[in-house]
Amino acid sequence: MRKKIRVVQFGVGPIGASIARLMRQKASLEIVGAVDNDPAKAGRDLGEIAGASDAPWGIMIVPEISAALQRPVDVVVHTTSSYLANVMDELIACLSAGCCVVSTCEELAYPFRKHPELSARLDAAAKDEGVALTGTGVNPGFVMDKLVLTLSAASQRVDWARATRIVDASNRRLPLQKKIGAGMDPYEFREQVAAGAIKHHGLPESVAMVADGLGFALDDISETIEPILAEDTVKTEFLEVAAGQVAGVHQIARGISAGQERIFMELQMYVGAKEPADTVELRGEPNLTLTIPGGTHGDLATAAIAVNTIPAILAAPAGLRSVRDLPVAFFPPTAT
Amino acid sequence: MRKKIRVVQFGVGPIGASIARLMRQKASLEIVGAVDNDPAKAGRDLGEIAGASDAPWGIMIVPEISAALQRPVDVVVHTTSSYLANVMDELIACLSAGCCVVSTCEELAYPFRKHPELSARLDAAAKDEGVALTGTGVNPGFVMDKLVLTLSAASQRVDWARATRIVDASNRRLPLQKKIGAGMDPYEFREQVAAGAIKHHGLPESVAMVADGLGFALDDISETIEPILAEDTVKTEFLEVAAGQVAGVHQIARGISAGQERIFMELQMYVGAKEPADTVELRGEPNLTLTIPGGTHGDLATAAIAVNTIPAILAAPAGLRSVRDLPVAFFPPTAT
Repeated sequence: MRKKIRVVQFGVGPIGASIARLMRQKASLEIVGAVDNDPAKAGRDLGEIAGASDAPWGIMIVPEISAALQRPVDVVVHTTSSYLANVMDELIACLSAGCCVVSTCEELAYPFRKHPELSARLDAAAKDEGVALTGTGVNPGFVMDKLVLTLSAASQRVDWARATRIVDASNRRLPLQKKIGAGMDPYEFREQVAAGAIKHHGLPESVAMVADGLGFALDDISETIEPILAEDTVKTEFLEVAAGQVAGVHQIARGISAGQERIFMELQMYVGAKEPADTVELRGEPNLTLTIPGGTHGDLATAAIAVNTIPAILAAPAGLRSVRDLPVAFFPPTAT
Repeated sequence: MRKKIRVVQFGVGPIGASIARLMRQKASLEIVGAVDNDPAKAGRDLGEIAGASDAPWGIMIVPEISAALQRPVDVVVHTTSSYLANVMDELIACLSAGCCVVSTCEELAYPFRKHPELSARLDAAAKDEGVALTGTGVNPGFVMDKLVLTLSAASQRVDWARATRIVDASNRRLPLQKKIGAGMDPYEFREQVAAGAIKHHGLPESVAMVADGLGFALDDISETIEPILAEDTVKTEFLEVAAGQVAGVHQIARGISAGQERIFMELQMYVGAKEPADTVELRGEPNLTLTIPGGTHGDLATAAIAVNTIPAILAAPAGLRSVRDLPVAFFPPTAT
C-alpha cells in the first residue's frame, strides 16, 4: 500500500488555515505538523486555530520549524511572508531536512531576476537534497503568469501580452481591505505606499516569468501604485468608504524591451469594484483574449493552488522551480 | 554553440504545411526532412508544397519515413491521420529511430482508455529508445482538456466540468466545411455519420483526460453527433447552404460516473455560427468560468500547439505522454 504524503503547514494565518482545512480533505495527504511563531497559536491545536468543524485534529502547532521536522516529512507548505529575504532561513531549513516546499511567498514565484543570488542558493540547497521548491498562488502563480503562458501555447507569434485582474475587495477579509488602503484619504495612502505598507507583491515576478516564457529580453520592469478613489459611498461588512476616499489600489507593472512595452499587467483591487474579472490578452498571430468573469477568488484560489501544486512539486526535478515549468492541475481528493 | 533541434515534418496536408511554415520561423529549429506519400507531393520541395513565400527551401519531400530518418533527427512532427491504429507503424518507425514525436493524431492525445494495448506498445517503444511522444492540437490537446485542467488548479473541489467550443466554419478551408457536412440535406448527413465520414475526433479523449485529472472514475463516455440546420441561407467563399440544409455538426460527449454526468463536452462547428467562443466551466468550490471570445482558430492554433510542444516533448521523461503531464507554453522564435 502506498504511503500517504506527509505534510507540514508552516504559517497558520488566514491562508495557511485555509490550506490546512483543504489538505484535510485529501485522502492521500497526512498533516503531520504545523508551525507558527505567534504565541497565541503555538501550543494550540491546528484544527482549532484553522477553524475546522472537525477540530481538534490532534496536531499541535509548534513555534519552530526545527521541531516539526524531527520526523519524516515529504512537503512543507509555507505561508509566512511575501519577502524572499525574510524567509530564506525558513526555506533552507525545510530543504536541508529533505522536504519539498510549496510556498505562497510572492517573491519566490519567479525570483531569478530580482534575487539571482538567493535563487542560486535555494536551487543549490534543493539539489543537494534531491528535493524541489516553488512559490505559487493565484497571483503570482496563476492569473498573471501561468494563464498567460498557457494561452500562449495556441499562439504562432506573440508581440504583446496583457493581464488585468480586477478584484472586488468588498467581500474579502478586513486585513485585506486595510492592506489596500480602503477608507484612507489619498494623502495617507501615498504615505503608506512610501512606507511599503500598501502593496500587492508579485507583479514584477509575473512580468519576468512571462517575459522569459515568451522570449522577450526585457531591459526594465516598471511598477506604479496609485489609489482608486470611491465615486460613491461603499459599505462593507467591516468598514465604510466615503466618496473621494481611497477604495483600494491600482497597480501597473510593465515589461519594457528596447524602449517598447511588451508586457502590461494591471491589478485593480478595491471595495465596490463593478466588474471583477481576470483577463489575459495576447496580440500577435492570432490575437487571443481569455476572460474569467467575476475573477478568481484570491483566498480560495491561493489555498487551492498551493495544495494542488503538492503532487507537481513532488514529481518535479530537484531544484528551484516555477509554475512556468510545472504542469498545474487539480489534486483529486482520492488521488493515489 | 548549441546544436539546432533537427525536425522532420511527417504529413504535408494543410496542417502539416502550416506547421512547416511556422517551424521555419524558429531560429533553434532546423527542418531536415519531410514525408508525404501523396505522389503529387513526394519529390517536390517542402517550401513549395507548403506555399512558403521564401520557397524553395531545398528540402525534398520523400514518400517513406525510413528515407527521412537516415540522418540524425531529434523530433518528428506527425500529421497524417486521426486514427491511432492507422499510424502505429509510422509512430513506431519514428520512435525506433530514436526520435521524439509530436503528433496531431486525435486518438493519440489520450489513448489510454480506448486503446490501452496500443498505448502500452507506444510507451514501451519510446522508453526503449529513451524518447517521448504525445498527441496534441487545439482540440484535443488544448481547449477541452488542457484549459479545463489548468483552470481546475484554482479549484478546492470540482463536481462537474464542461467545455463548449463553438466554431464558425465560414472562414475555414473547403475540406473542413465538407467534413462537417455543410450544404448536405439532413438525411445525407446521417448516412455520412453512419459511414464514419462525418466526425470530429477527440472528444472522448478529452473527456478521459479530464476525468483522470479531476479524479472522476467514469463508467462510460457517451458520444452523439447531430446536424445543425441553417436557419437562413449561409454563403461562404466555397459553398452555399440553404435554410433547412445542414450547416455543420453538433457533437456532445459525456463522462458518466455512477449514473451521474460529471463531464459535458460540446462541439458546435458550423457555417454561420453567431457567437463563436471556447468556454470552460467548473462547478464546485468555487464555481469558475473561463471564456475565449471568438474562440481559438482551429488550424492556426493546432499548428502553433504542435510546434510549441516541441521543447516540452524533448524535455519530457521517456514514454507516452499527454498534455496532462506537460507544461504548455509558447516556443519563442529565438529560444536557445
